Amino acid sequence: MIVITKNDIDAMDQRYRVNFINSLSGFKSVNLVGTVDAEGHSNVAPFSSVVHLGADPALVGMVSRPDSVLRGSLKNIIETGWYSLNHVTEQMLEQAHQCSARYAENESEFTATGLSESYSPLCPAPMVAQSPLSMLIEYKEHHRLAINNTVFIVGQIREVHLPQESLLDSGLVDLEAIGSLACSGLDSYHGTQRLARYAYAKPDKPLQEIDEHS
Amino acid sequence: MIVITKNDIDAMDQRYRVNFINSLSGFKSVNLVGTVDAEGHSNVAPFSSVVHLGADPALVGMVSRPDSVLRGSLKNIIETGWYSLNHVTEQMLEQAHQCSARYAENESEFTATGLSESYSPLCPAPMVAQSPLSMLIEYKEHHRLAINNTVFIVGQIREVHLPQESLLDSGLVDLEAIGSLACSGLDSYHGTQRLARYAYAKPDKPLQEIDEHS
Repeated sequence: MIVITKNDIDAMDQRYRVNFINSLSGFKSVNLVGTVDAEGHSNVAPFSSVVHLGADPALVGMVSRPDSVLRGSLKNIIETGWYSLNHVTEQMLEQAHQCSARYAENESEFTATGLSESYSPLCPAPMVAQSPLSMLIEYKEHHRLAINNTVFIVGQIREVHLPQESLLDSGLVDLEAIGSLACSGLDSYHGTQRLARYAYAKPDKPLQEIDEHS
Repeated sequence: MIVITKNDIDAMDQRYRVNFINSLSGFKSVNLVGTVDAEGHSNVAPFSSVVHLGADPALVGMVSRPDSVLRGSLKNIIETGWYSLNHVTEQMLEQAHQCSARYAENESEFTATGLSESYSPLCPAPMVAQSPLSMLIEYKEHHRLAINNTVFIVGQIREVHLPQESLLDSGLVDLEAIGSLACSGLDSYHGTQRLARYAYAKPDKPLQEIDEHS
């Protein structure tokens, strides 16, 4: 084991530090965020920071850096009040990663990468047709971090599109059945294999495995 | 594909809804959060909401529900200003899940589950000796969500303990080499296999794979 201190981190080459620090949180979700601006121009960008915030009301959070290529998404979300979250599979992975390129503001990442838009009557935000699980999210609030101006965006899940067979009897969505990927660092994408499920833990009771299949 | 609306979500059985909504963000990191209270009692609890917030300064965020078993962690973090984040492997998975049980306030999850504490001269927060990657985090700020009172905690990475051989030349930590797990929903744990790494994407340039091994 080695110990890396704050001084070591401060002394790192900028690109090396970005790769290193981005790895440390552990595995992350991969979602494409679909938005539209007030003039109707669509935008889609990958986010690896979507987190669960509560089930009732059904809330998700995500992190946006105001100085990044994601500025378009943040602006559109606050302007229109809506966005979509779309899981990414191996079949659409290259297109999803390519959406992180800094395209000109009038160029849609959908057109540039060949991903297709799909819509619900609920709201103006585009979903990604190639995604096996898409959600429409209503913007609720955001918090700007004092320490680095990063923005934490909070939204409510208003509609979920997914394959019937991925929904287990317990309510769990079988993310492996639909091919959702995980990522690590800035650029590494991973498939998964379930190791185990465990029942709600209680003091002084042995852990119980859950066995449930679709 | 089926469409699940807000009305459908509202009508779900509470336990089913918790399983369903918890699945939707995608794969999550698994970290044990180590803290100590002002009297020196240690606490360790699993969190699946740790996210990257920036590399310079090196920041991580995580979500805590004020009304959950994690209250102890949140209280200790704000009281002492320190916590540890510790990745979870298959070898320590049952103990890590068991830490989510509601033990009495004077009972340490370390003692109850057989996980071992380890310390750095830097701060009073305990690390988990069984973990292959541990970080010591200095508490910086927190934000309380207006919509459901959930707390988003922001901290700075002050020290990282990890195996030398997991650190690739680019700065990326090979999370598969150290056996870090991913999770989904409330109770499902997953191993991973890397599918690909891609270079920084640029408009009008084909995507390039990165090939780097430890």
